[in-house]
Amino acid sequence: MKKSQKTYRCKVCRQPTAIYLREHRLALCKDDYIAWFERQVARTIRQFKMFGPRDRILVGVSGGKDSLTVWLVLNRLGYQADGVFLDLGIPDFSELSYLKGRDFAAIHGLKFQRLFLKDLIGLVLPDLEKKTRKVCSLCGSIKRALFNKLAKEMGYQVVVTGHNLDDEASSLLSNVINWSLKYLARKYPVLPEGAGFVRKAKPLCRSSVREIRLYAELNDIDFLADPCPFSENATRLTYAEEMDRLEEVFPGTKRRFYLEYLRKAYPIFHRDVDHFMERPLVTCSRCQEPAVNDPCLICRLRAEAGLS
Amino acid sequence: MKKSQKTYRCKVCRQPTAIYLREHRLALCKDDYIAWFERQVARTIRQFKMFGPRDRILVGVSGGKDSLTVWLVLNRLGYQADGVFLDLGIPDFSELSYLKGRDFAAIHGLKFQRLFLKDLIGLVLPDLEKKTRKVCSLCGSIKRALFNKLAKEMGYQVVVTGHNLDDEASSLLSNVINWSLKYLARKYPVLPEGAGFVRKAKPLCRSSVREIRLYAELNDIDFLADPCPFSENATRLTYAEEMDRLEEVFPGTKRRFYLEYLRKAYPIFHRDVDHFMERPLVTCSRCQEPAVNDPCLICRLRAEAGLS
Repeated sequence: MKKSQKTYRCKVCRQPTAIYLREHRLALCKDDYIAWFERQVARTIRQFKMFGPRDRILVGVSGGKDSLTVWLVLNRLGYQADGVFLDLGIPDFSELSYLKGRDFAAIHGLKFQRLFLKDLIGLVLPDLEKKTRKVCSLCGSIKRALFNKLAKEMGYQVVVTGHNLDDEASSLLSNVINWSLKYLARKYPVLPEGAGFVRKAKPLCRSSVREIRLYAELNDIDFLADPCPFSENATRLTYAEEMDRLEEVFPGTKRRFYLEYLRKAYPIFHRDVDHFMERPLVTCSRCQEPAVNDPCLICRLRAEAGLS
Repeated sequence: MKKSQKTYRCKVCRQPTAIYLREHRLALCKDDYIAWFERQVARTIRQFKMFGPRDRILVGVSGGKDSLTVWLVLNRLGYQADGVFLDLGIPDFSELSYLKGRDFAAIHGLKFQRLFLKDLIGLVLPDLEKKTRKVCSLCGSIKRALFNKLAKEMGYQVVVTGHNLDDEASSLLSNVINWSLKYLARKYPVLPEGAGFVRKAKPLCRSSVREIRLYAELNDIDFLADPCPFSENATRLTYAEEMDRLEEVFPGTKRRFYLEYLRKAYPIFHRDVDHFMERPLVTCSRCQEPAVNDPCLICRLRAEAGLS
């Protein structure tokens, strides 16, 4: 991403610059890179009609570069975005992650709250690992359900996550290799509200890991770079590595693969979205949340833990 | 594919065996492997309604393991399948390839003919390489057009090629990564006759390279193992390597990816096949063959070579 300062001048201000974006064939100085990155996110929000200035937005904050970056950008763009940190109870890691979010919120004057998985379902992540071999998938389901419920209770219209282009491209590859039509028919950067769901949006879906890391560094965001110690997810890693290799041989592959999917293939799969759902969602008779089963995952875990 | 003879016994005859097919969890002796392989091909022909015993079939023979194998199996299954070898005029390689086909035909008492690209379009493959950077793609287009024309002239109803599962899975990956909807909407193991086309079929589309090589070896097929010296096709190789890596990590990926595509995704893409064609095919005003442009590729090359 960086080339000799002698070679490039910022395309905007003509100052010598250290930043060259090969994929976009674009040289920029620090300030213009930051402005460019924020415009990219603004364009993504607009293009996919994610939310407006009146929506109250809840950002799922993990303490990593993606969630802190999206949170900062949303606020700079004038949106009302508060952060929520779900403490999964992972020794050391959860505390470290929380502190990154808390300090970031303090520096930027943002509203931030911490919730404890232990309070909400009576378990911590290390307990969940004993229950399943697919802990990442289970953790994802729990977080989606909890954030949805919390957002409604606290009056937020939108839940935002920091998913980036690399995440989206590699999960798309996994969905395609397995022809998971029910995921392909719903894989979109914004999912509408309704039937018990708040809106969900991924404003960084067109921003690559490298672009986000650079933005975070240039803005002195102090993020936690370590991956979750429980994320030994060989499957996800394999697809991510495949996408990295394709990107290496054919630069721009990730972006093209994902954006062309959204433009050309998603509409075709989405037409049949109801057909691909294995069965319709139900309403949990205990908490009234939309769910795959009744009782829902959260109520089931709470009951197992003797919580209610 | 091979494991210790002590470990496995043939599932059919219980004899000790040297062949173990991990993907199918199947141990077989030599004779039962050959029978199993042929049954697989017979099942593919039936499942995709490729052709019947009355159809006259023209097999495009390259001298490699795939085309010689499919030719042998079709004849053993009782189909009327003759071979045609298109001599591309590649020094040494074309002569060697031809001899493999000729000797194979003689051993098995099959009808075989040799045609020369030079006679048909006034050029040899080394000439074509100077015209384009995508020589594999151009050669493929020429062969498809010529085989279609020749089959009609010689009274064949079906053109068969030796494309295997590995070929189909890696070209599917390429089509998906680039979301080439016009290819995805027509990627099927049999293409129907009509509008100037004879039927085209790929009876080995469910057979892996390893299975085919084993069948060829067990039947003492003397095939040319060298790749075409002009096939330095980095793009195709990259996707093939990606599929190999996925297969290594998740055994059975190629088969699942391709067969689930046929079962679940192809019908969705195929509904819109006319919509995805950039423009309708035309009839070449010189040779009356269906074509993308008028005059067609073959007539254009012939004219450039001063042939007619």
